[in-house]
Amino acid sequence: MDPASGGLLAAAVSNAGALGLIGGGYGDHPTLQKEFDLAGDAAIGCGFITWSMGRDISLLDKALERRPRALMLSFSDPEPYARKVTDAGVPLICQVQTLDHVQRALDCGASVIVAQGTEAGGHGFDRQTTMTFTPEAADYIAGKSPDTLLLSAGGIADGRGLAAALLLGADGVLMGTRFWATQEALIHRNAKDLVVQAKGGQTVRTSVFDIARGREWPREYTGRLMVNNFIRKWHGKEDALKAVRSEEKVRVESAYESGDYDCANVTVGQAIGLIADIPPAALVVQRVAEQAEHLLRSYR
Amino acid sequence: MDPASGGLLAAAVSNAGALGLIGGGYGDHPTLQKEFDLAGDAAIGCGFITWSMGRDISLLDKALERRPRALMLSFSDPEPYARKVTDAGVPLICQVQTLDHVQRALDCGASVIVAQGTEAGGHGFDRQTTMTFTPEAADYIAGKSPDTLLLSAGGIADGRGLAAALLLGADGVLMGTRFWATQEALIHRNAKDLVVQAKGGQTVRTSVFDIARGREWPREYTGRLMVNNFIRKWHGKEDALKAVRSEEKVRVESAYESGDYDCANVTVGQAIGLIADIPPAALVVQRVAEQAEHLLRSYR
Repeated sequence: MDPASGGLLAAAVSNAGALGLIGGGYGDHPTLQKEFDLAGDAAIGCGFITWSMGRDISLLDKALERRPRALMLSFSDPEPYARKVTDAGVPLICQVQTLDHVQRALDCGASVIVAQGTEAGGHGFDRQTTMTFTPEAADYIAGKSPDTLLLSAGGIADGRGLAAALLLGADGVLMGTRFWATQEALIHRNAKDLVVQAKGGQTVRTSVFDIARGREWPREYTGRLMVNNFIRKWHGKEDALKAVRSEEKVRVESAYESGDYDCANVTVGQAIGLIADIPPAALVVQRVAEQAEHLLRSYR
Repeated sequence: MDPASGGLLAAAVSNAGALGLIGGGYGDHPTLQKEFDLAGDAAIGCGFITWSMGRDISLLDKALERRPRALMLSFSDPEPYARKVTDAGVPLICQVQTLDHVQRALDCGASVIVAQGTEAGGHGFDRQTTMTFTPEAADYIAGKSPDTLLLSAGGIADGRGLAAALLLGADGVLMGTRFWATQEALIHRNAKDLVVQAKGGQTVRTSVFDIARGREWPREYTGRLMVNNFIRKWHGKEDALKAVRSEEKVRVESAYESGDYDCANVTVGQAIGLIADIPPAALVVQRVAEQAEHLLRSYR
């Protein structure tokens, strides 16, 4: 949810009763400072792409100085940075893709583990879906560390998804794509409109934008994105793309600025098929909670 | 679930209160006759791989003569065969992978639509997961044909999965992998033991067994299987495999007979990580129903 999840979105989510996270993403100091400032004194958290933040650990220091309600580390080993978080008295959230990652997160003292299914938008593994990873992770955690909280991520955009995740064994959910299509999301209106129109079958896992943008992701991580002309042109032709990477990088960045999402990345998951409007974020939180509660109470 | 779902397994499932289906699979007359005979007068259905059965439509005639409680068509367009089923007064079940398939199934007069997520074992699409496809299909069907029943397939092996699917908008579920590891399944004990030991991350979608066995699947269909030595050897080297197809076919078939599942295919989905025993099929039905009911009633 970097760059879409800025301070205003995170604050709106937290003020509505959930926990909003600033998407620290790859990490840069001016953006981090600006978005924390925009969040004001809202009770928010912050997340980072672990391997990228690790190239400048002062990003983590600065985030912790803001006393976030939680600090989330996603993608690659959290161990080198976990102690800094827990020593600061900040609850550590680890987003994971495998049972081995679950164990590693427990070893790192995570208070919350986010089990990410492959339907999730953005980076992740092409390994397990939410429907199986949630209950399998729940069983694993129940046997090892029953007080650690488990959240489901991937494919959840409404109260049906929240209710289902709870019955699968989660304590809650992490939602990204649904908040992409909110008023507060820091993304061009065109990208929000695309999501509203899309069906869930219109995403794919690919590395073509990472290649074009020169992002050196660790092995196994690909990004789930809405299929567009750029992906149709390069997916499966990664070697050819590498040969023209610098020109394509300029093209993608220019397209991003102008809102041309035939070329720029639309970083969303399969939940796009469940999204039909662009409300304020607080309304999303309210709707999801109310729908889940209604569904769960309707079975007696 | 061809060949694992024979007449005895189907009958056991039906006699326990669910609907058991004989896995007609690619289709051959002696097997079909034998398995229907073994099912006796149990209230079972039968399923076929549509494109394969279509090469000898008398298979469908013979199945319909047995007065099945339902006839399921999976994989490729059901339209050329649907009328024969509905004209016989037999409820038509169509297993689908996309919203376009949902519409096609409705056009064909399906009474039941099975929305198959990519986590399912055996053939399917690498497109959408159960967590998103179920609610998206539910919304679609609600708007077009609200009386048509929707089942979730893919990743469901216990009462948590059934309860979750119901909250996602399904009317029920289709389970395959869970019944692979039952006493009645027509598969070598070694293959059942493997599933009990496995984690959900140990499957992959691949075409290597279709290539080796000379199965001409339509574009986009791959099979989800447990990763084994055969897959490690050939997945990603499909052209090389085609060059030695005949030798590898003999090897796979011989391995299948001897229960050597380092080489033979273990056709199961991501739900393997939720399976810990090899009970009689009736006990699976009972457990799943009781666990789902308990979970749904526990939220008040």
